[in-house]
Amino acid sequence: MAKDKGPRRPRAETPKGFRDYFGAEVSERKAMLDTIAEVYHRYGFDALETSAVETVEALGKFLPDVDRPNAGVFAWREDEEGASREGDWLALRYDLTAPLARVAAQYRNDLASPYRRYAMGPVWRNEKPGPGRFRQFYQCDADTVGSGSVAADAEICAMLADALEEVGIPRGDYVVRVNNRKVLNGVMEVAGILDPTDPEKFAHERGIVLRAIDKFDKFGEAGVRALIGKGRMDESGDFTKGAGLSDEQAELIMGFVAASDAVDRKLIDMLAEHPTQPVAVLRHIQAVRDARNDYARRKLAIPMAAMDARNRVTLKYLGDLVGSSETGAEGVSELEQIASLLDAQGYGPDRIVIDPSVVRGLGYYTGPVFEAELTFEILDEKGRPRQFGSVAGGGRYDDLVKRFTGQSVPATGVSIGVDRLLAALRAKGRVQTDTRGPVVVTVMDRDRMADYQAMATELRRAGIRAEVYLGNPKNFGNQLKYADKRNSPVAVIQGADEAARGVVQVKDLYLGARIAAEASHEEWKAQPAQTEVARDALVAEVRRILGQG
Amino acid sequence: MAKDKGPRRPRAETPKGFRDYFGAEVSERKAMLDTIAEVYHRYGFDALETSAVETVEALGKFLPDVDRPNAGVFAWREDEEGASREGDWLALRYDLTAPLARVAAQYRNDLASPYRRYAMGPVWRNEKPGPGRFRQFYQCDADTVGSGSVAADAEICAMLADALEEVGIPRGDYVVRVNNRKVLNGVMEVAGILDPTDPEKFAHERGIVLRAIDKFDKFGEAGVRALIGKGRMDESGDFTKGAGLSDEQAELIMGFVAASDAVDRKLIDMLAEHPTQPVAVLRHIQAVRDARNDYARRKLAIPMAAMDARNRVTLKYLGDLVGSSETGAEGVSELEQIASLLDAQGYGPDRIVIDPSVVRGLGYYTGPVFEAELTFEILDEKGRPRQFGSVAGGGRYDDLVKRFTGQSVPATGVSIGVDRLLAALRAKGRVQTDTRGPVVVTVMDRDRMADYQAMATELRRAGIRAEVYLGNPKNFGNQLKYADKRNSPVAVIQGADEAARGVVQVKDLYLGARIAAEASHEEWKAQPAQTEVARDALVAEVRRILGQG
Repeated sequence: MAKDKGPRRPRAETPKGFRDYFGAEVSERKAMLDTIAEVYHRYGFDALETSAVETVEALGKFLPDVDRPNAGVFAWREDEEGASREGDWLALRYDLTAPLARVAAQYRNDLASPYRRYAMGPVWRNEKPGPGRFRQFYQCDADTVGSGSVAADAEICAMLADALEEVGIPRGDYVVRVNNRKVLNGVMEVAGILDPTDPEKFAHERGIVLRAIDKFDKFGEAGVRALIGKGRMDESGDFTKGAGLSDEQAELIMGFVAASDAVDRKLIDMLAEHPTQPVAVLRHIQAVRDARNDYARRKLAIPMAAMDARNRVTLKYLGDLVGSSETGAEGVSELEQIASLLDAQGYGPDRIVIDPSVVRGLGYYTGPVFEAELTFEILDEKGRPRQFGSVAGGGRYDDLVKRFTGQSVPATGVSIGVDRLLAALRAKGRVQTDTRGPVVVTVMDRDRMADYQAMATELRRAGIRAEVYLGNPKNFGNQLKYADKRNSPVAVIQGADEAARGVVQVKDLYLGARIAAEASHEEWKAQPAQTEVARDALVAEVRRILGQG
Repeated sequence: MAKDKGPRRPRAETPKGFRDYFGAEVSERKAMLDTIAEVYHRYGFDALETSAVETVEALGKFLPDVDRPNAGVFAWREDEEGASREGDWLALRYDLTAPLARVAAQYRNDLASPYRRYAMGPVWRNEKPGPGRFRQFYQCDADTVGSGSVAADAEICAMLADALEEVGIPRGDYVVRVNNRKVLNGVMEVAGILDPTDPEKFAHERGIVLRAIDKFDKFGEAGVRALIGKGRMDESGDFTKGAGLSDEQAELIMGFVAASDAVDRKLIDMLAEHPTQPVAVLRHIQAVRDARNDYARRKLAIPMAAMDARNRVTLKYLGDLVGSSETGAEGVSELEQIASLLDAQGYGPDRIVIDPSVVRGLGYYTGPVFEAELTFEILDEKGRPRQFGSVAGGGRYDDLVKRFTGQSVPATGVSIGVDRLLAALRAKGRVQTDTRGPVVVTVMDRDRMADYQAMATELRRAGIRAEVYLGNPKNFGNQLKYADKRNSPVAVIQGADEAARGVVQVKDLYLGARIAAEASHEEWKAQPAQTEVARDALVAEVRRILGQG
């Protein structure tokens, strides 16, 4: 009979690309975010929490007039009932910047200007999930809206350095790399693919160039050169059409792409000409050049004096590259100001460096861009040493608020990749977590539940995490297995006999486990991990075992 | 030309029913949730964070085979690409209990059992928004899965009381009211609308009865009586068809509904027969009876001795009401155990009371149900005193995990209404927030930005929240207006003259505001709120003004 079979049971599964976080995973992330929030707050940034849901039109990038506008976002159409406007498309935010732009426009008459705000929370991406790639993840952002000053960009960089150090990344294990989108625009002007009087012209070509540069690490110099020229054939024989730049144009772009390399070469020449520099510096620079894609070694190799010189050489090199372009010169000058502002505050090139290789994929950046990279090595899935890489990035985006208001509002900010940073801290052993479970009060006698609860209450009042076993108490072995699974440090036991004598057994479970693993049979039988104490002494004895005595 | 007009600008608006939270609103809620999490953790509960998105089938209540299954939830159909199964319906969670049931089923072989977990975070309801009613709001839950013991229910009630006190609701200002769904089922058995051998029979009638009882406060006794009988005509003339119970059946149900009233009457009789009881108690009980829907007065009126008697009288009354029903008797016995377990731990009837008027709307409760009510009065929008009402509720739901596994898994838990509790704390002035803004270092000389940044850095290193003004520094008045808008306690000023002399001006803005409001013109001109100090003494002077000296 169909009725007796009942309906099909639902599957107990997270949707593909989503996951659950248990216990310490939640509290470790929380502790890290709390620390970062403290740093942001100290810099004068205020908390903002927008809702997860925005209108698709406010989020931008996605047009509400196509049938299913959720390429990249999770979107749905409002019901008629309760909708602000029938048929509005709503979506989950895909970052924390788009909602900020909406807030800055919506409350522009009420907010202090400049408006410094920080935000942390989940964002959602409707993308194909992969190993370690989830469709919901945390971001932790700080932005300054309403200041066009490079001091705002410099401040964000300094704050980012502080945040990394306060969560436990020591100085020397990270570097904040700074570049300026205007420098690249200057180079593009010189190359003839950007006309300041007609910004739309060659936009298609510039898009290809930008994406190609961003893939430098993946495709190498030859690959990028092919992509900005006629096109690139990959291993499978698929052909990607290029930007169609001439060899001369390509040379200019490649000069920018290879700027880091060129700067290193210049540094070596320069240092060679100044024999007062210690030979060690020259050797270091050479080592760096040989390992130019390995930031871990680069960091180790370059002594401060040379790093300082490096910023100067980089700025000079970029200045030459942008030639007569006004935008380009502005970009170089901004970088110069940022470096000197930071230097004056004690954030020298051991922490923050000018680096032309930072491009950042997002199209909306209009000025300085920055990226925080962890420079220590971890082992990849095949056991090979790899540098950890980027954990935060950001930059200036002066046009996002303008979308709403029509008026240009300068803005700059940074976003920390929470999960990557947490993984880095775990890799460095910098996450302090108390994985210790609660004290478990076992149940020997079902009718005396009130007594057991009273013990747990007493322990809690003394600030000790404690609980009564609430499963079926019949099998005592199961109770100890439960305590083991919870990683409990202590089990409390009181049978009828103990109750009559006014005592409790207190079992040190960690010591017990060590004895079980190491001790002889005689030692084990002596049960040194279990102590009988007067009922009154319960809290004191547990405290002693926990090392709080 | 159409092109020049550009595309229509997006509206800078939150979707209807959603809102943004700024600064202190975020940090106050966070502080409250942190405190509650600490209490939950101390009771042995572990954190769990599930994703916002679930499959519609895992959420339940909503069927994936209808065209648009998002009645009450925000739901959308998965794209083909990246979908776990093409066309799956996904939705935002509407509470934290449904995801817990899914987790308990999905990880049943890995989790310790019983599994105590807490969770906090936003949930979403696709409902018509109204004043103060939002479509995204926070919940803060604690649940025990895998324990059928009433000790688990009692523990949740005790923990709820602790949580309320620790966030700042003093004892006496709240009461946790406990009832048992089984008692009502027992009454329904006696009334002949529940057949233990055929649970489906009369399900429709019972649904109407349940909803009617839940609306007792709204419709009153006559309204409920009409709804469980033939039906009810409202003021507009609309007729709601009733459950069709006979007068005899209705009498039994109404006996349950009016149990609180009846208990009060019995108490009065009882106390009158025992002239050893102080007359004051009798008077109190009488006052309580007169004000039976006013928990504020009830609380004030009933002394402990009578409250204690009240629990006993209530249990006796309910025992009579359920007659020979096994389920009913079980429910009464469970209530008895809960009360005595709590009493033994020191949670007496001044905090936790047996109260038959608690029904809780949700259909999935199977045993004890509880509700935390704040008993103090606030003024409503018309200035009338009102009791604050419910801030948390929960109960036992033994069938939610079974949906997935087919095996019955007992569970019980509580959900705190975060926004209502926060509103209560604000109403009581119990929210401690530092609304003080950062120290603002003003910019007198654009070229000396590095100096100003260095001042802010120094202040921050001393643990003082500080920032440099990053707007256009041209108009100094705007800088002070900004500091005012940010509620800054101190402004730091250094022009070229001061820089040359190695000093800074430190302005106490709070004192300045007070003087501006109160002082005479002479006092004002003396500018006692502004002090010149040596540049080296900046931190010390700011500390002094902030009262940290």
